[in-house]
Amino acid sequence: MAVRIGLVGTGTVGGGCLDILNNHKEDFKRHYGIDLELVRVCSLDRSEAEAHGVGDLFTDDFHEIINDPSIDLVIELIGGTGVAHAIVTEALKAGKNVVTANKALMATAGEEIFRLADEAGVEIAFEASVGGGIPIIDPMKHSLISNEISSVLGIVNGTTNYMLTRMDEDGMSYDDVLAEAQAHGFAEADPTADVDGFDAAAKIAILASIAFNSRVVMGDVSTEGIRGIQPIDLKTANDMGYAVKLLALAHRLDEGIDVRVHPTMIPKKHQLAHVNGVDNAIYVTGDAVGETMFFGAGAGAGPAASAVMGDVLEVARPITMGVPPIVGCTCTDELPIVPMDNLVTRYYIRLVVPDRTGVLATAAEVFARHDVSLRSVSQEGTRERDAVNLIFITHTAQEKNIRAALAELSDMQDMLIVEPTVIRVED
Amino acid sequence: MAVRIGLVGTGTVGGGCLDILNNHKEDFKRHYGIDLELVRVCSLDRSEAEAHGVGDLFTDDFHEIINDPSIDLVIELIGGTGVAHAIVTEALKAGKNVVTANKALMATAGEEIFRLADEAGVEIAFEASVGGGIPIIDPMKHSLISNEISSVLGIVNGTTNYMLTRMDEDGMSYDDVLAEAQAHGFAEADPTADVDGFDAAAKIAILASIAFNSRVVMGDVSTEGIRGIQPIDLKTANDMGYAVKLLALAHRLDEGIDVRVHPTMIPKKHQLAHVNGVDNAIYVTGDAVGETMFFGAGAGAGPAASAVMGDVLEVARPITMGVPPIVGCTCTDELPIVPMDNLVTRYYIRLVVPDRTGVLATAAEVFARHDVSLRSVSQEGTRERDAVNLIFITHTAQEKNIRAALAELSDMQDMLIVEPTVIRVED
Repeated sequence: MAVRIGLVGTGTVGGGCLDILNNHKEDFKRHYGIDLELVRVCSLDRSEAEAHGVGDLFTDDFHEIINDPSIDLVIELIGGTGVAHAIVTEALKAGKNVVTANKALMATAGEEIFRLADEAGVEIAFEASVGGGIPIIDPMKHSLISNEISSVLGIVNGTTNYMLTRMDEDGMSYDDVLAEAQAHGFAEADPTADVDGFDAAAKIAILASIAFNSRVVMGDVSTEGIRGIQPIDLKTANDMGYAVKLLALAHRLDEGIDVRVHPTMIPKKHQLAHVNGVDNAIYVTGDAVGETMFFGAGAGAGPAASAVMGDVLEVARPITMGVPPIVGCTCTDELPIVPMDNLVTRYYIRLVVPDRTGVLATAAEVFARHDVSLRSVSQEGTRERDAVNLIFITHTAQEKNIRAALAELSDMQDMLIVEPTVIRVED
Repeated sequence: MAVRIGLVGTGTVGGGCLDILNNHKEDFKRHYGIDLELVRVCSLDRSEAEAHGVGDLFTDDFHEIINDPSIDLVIELIGGTGVAHAIVTEALKAGKNVVTANKALMATAGEEIFRLADEAGVEIAFEASVGGGIPIIDPMKHSLISNEISSVLGIVNGTTNYMLTRMDEDGMSYDDVLAEAQAHGFAEADPTADVDGFDAAAKIAILASIAFNSRVVMGDVSTEGIRGIQPIDLKTANDMGYAVKLLALAHRLDEGIDVRVHPTMIPKKHQLAHVNGVDNAIYVTGDAVGETMFFGAGAGAGPAASAVMGDVLEVARPITMGVPPIVGCTCTDELPIVPMDNLVTRYYIRLVVPDRTGVLATAAEVFARHDVSLRSVSQEGTRERDAVNLIFITHTAQEKNIRAALAELSDMQDMLIVEPTVIRVED
């Protein structure tokens, strides 16, 4: 029995999916006995759809897919939480299986979506929402489920990883490297979602939910981006034996789930330190498996389409066999989110201050008063004649105290010239 | 409905599985609705079984498991192709699902085992047979199936990777590092299966079969081990910008499947070059996903048991739901194996020869006569006063010609003092 598919969205990922279907439809039948039949393609851009030979299957109204009772499976690839939310929820309510690459939707409306899928007795799959083509959701929902997962650390945003790599290797400034990334198409005209860490936050919310069997939403994730990072930070980290990465981190603690996104120093001998450019990697630690890592291209037509079509084939198996979905929602626990203030770690802090006697002493005094013990302080020049960088490495300190100290320094007259740069150390 | 399990083998991996069952049985029920009930444990060593609290479930006769009609699933963890073959095939014939960690069995009798499973309408799963706890078989059978896989490159033997890492980092000789690995329990008293590449050959046969949808058996794999490798080879590779790894390689070519195991130089910037010690990694390239890598501990009680119990839970899902197995054998094609003689690559060749004028010229002449073009030749001392190392780096050459040249050199009087060391270059 053919599995009848409606696809919504013919951009990069949608186009990649259409190409895979065109190239491998017969292989899927021969190898896996799965007959995928594309019956409707919805897009706002007819020429984009035509470029992949969509022909008569074209529509610009997604309701034609939702309302077609012969369609078994809807692929949603338009992204965002507006129309995409309507498409996914209406498809599920209409009893259709859904495959999506939509991280923002899954990280905000996951609970509703899983509930609707469960009520309709259909599957919702979303491997492409994290790490492009890297298999990570499927391994966490299958191969690794005999483990209690203690942490998930991910380089899950290719744009910022590219920027940090270029800053590190070529000493380029933040502004120059952003402009270059935009020119290469690695960064959007409005880079906020990437550079401020929101894209990574959605992804770690999804991964944490699966890893810890407890719903984590995007709003639970303490998020800091890379806007404050400059080559001097990477150089200093290098000298200390560390690489700087925008890490998405989720830890299972006795008190609950600690989940955050921020620039992080990791030892150079760690596998994640070698993940450069637009590549992504997710590092998972479990009580039995120990440490394991999944690496690959985090974005692009091919990789994302590989993940989407892998899900489509997976969802098509039970449909073909006429059996119910195999795996539903696995968020069976309700673990609390640990406040970021409770974090205890080591910190790299760079302050840009006026080049004036006594500033270093003042800053050190503020840290001391907030129980932040300093391991080292150094002073480095800046491009401006009247400003210097003060670089502090702390001993283990508490986030709450770091924040209080930085707030006090920010409030002082003639002290901080720009916002402080904070990099947490993960050993 | 509980899934009733019989486990055979209570060594390292079996013990790890019993621990996981003891620790997480209730979690599996709560998170996944899967109730695993251990009903019989077979071992030749009662005290080993007792150490994991087996109690009354103990037997020393595996037929008590095969002949118990209430048992749904048999876990085979004794290894080898003798009794293990009987256990697996008889369990399948008795209509029981089977999970095994047995690479040798799957790489030699895979076709028979899949046929028996298919006839009985049950599952056979073997994630732990390759890469310890690293999810690799499951991702290749699920997440990545929308791809045509073009190559699989694996560091799949922890013993030899540990030895090569120590030789590289500490300049230890082959004999010293083998003795150390044996003392640490990383190498067997008889290290043949590891150091001669047979363990890796079984694993790449399994991976190639899945990647290319065509049965590859251990005997199809051209296999060379690391016995000839010495620190000088690693040092020279290092100077050239390469790491030396015992790679298991499978490539899909127009002519068929090229599958082999041998010491290999890989560029230091490649992810696999950073996989050190007993860690394993498998690097998979597909037409959509591009390049992706799976990394982790390749052996040990926890990692292997993680993979076995992941399989057990996966196989338990359809049993719990009362539906037939989801994925059977995927070897639907019959691709030919490309003879090793056809290989065209670059070679590093080290000859240990008498320290005598004219030897280098003679060797160079033999290579030239066999159409092997040399890119560089250098001479390095050895520990022996009368012998020197001649190190040749070739331009692209054909395996057949390399072998003919080396055979001719071996046949010459007073020429080679030991067998030549050959390292192929993978760029």
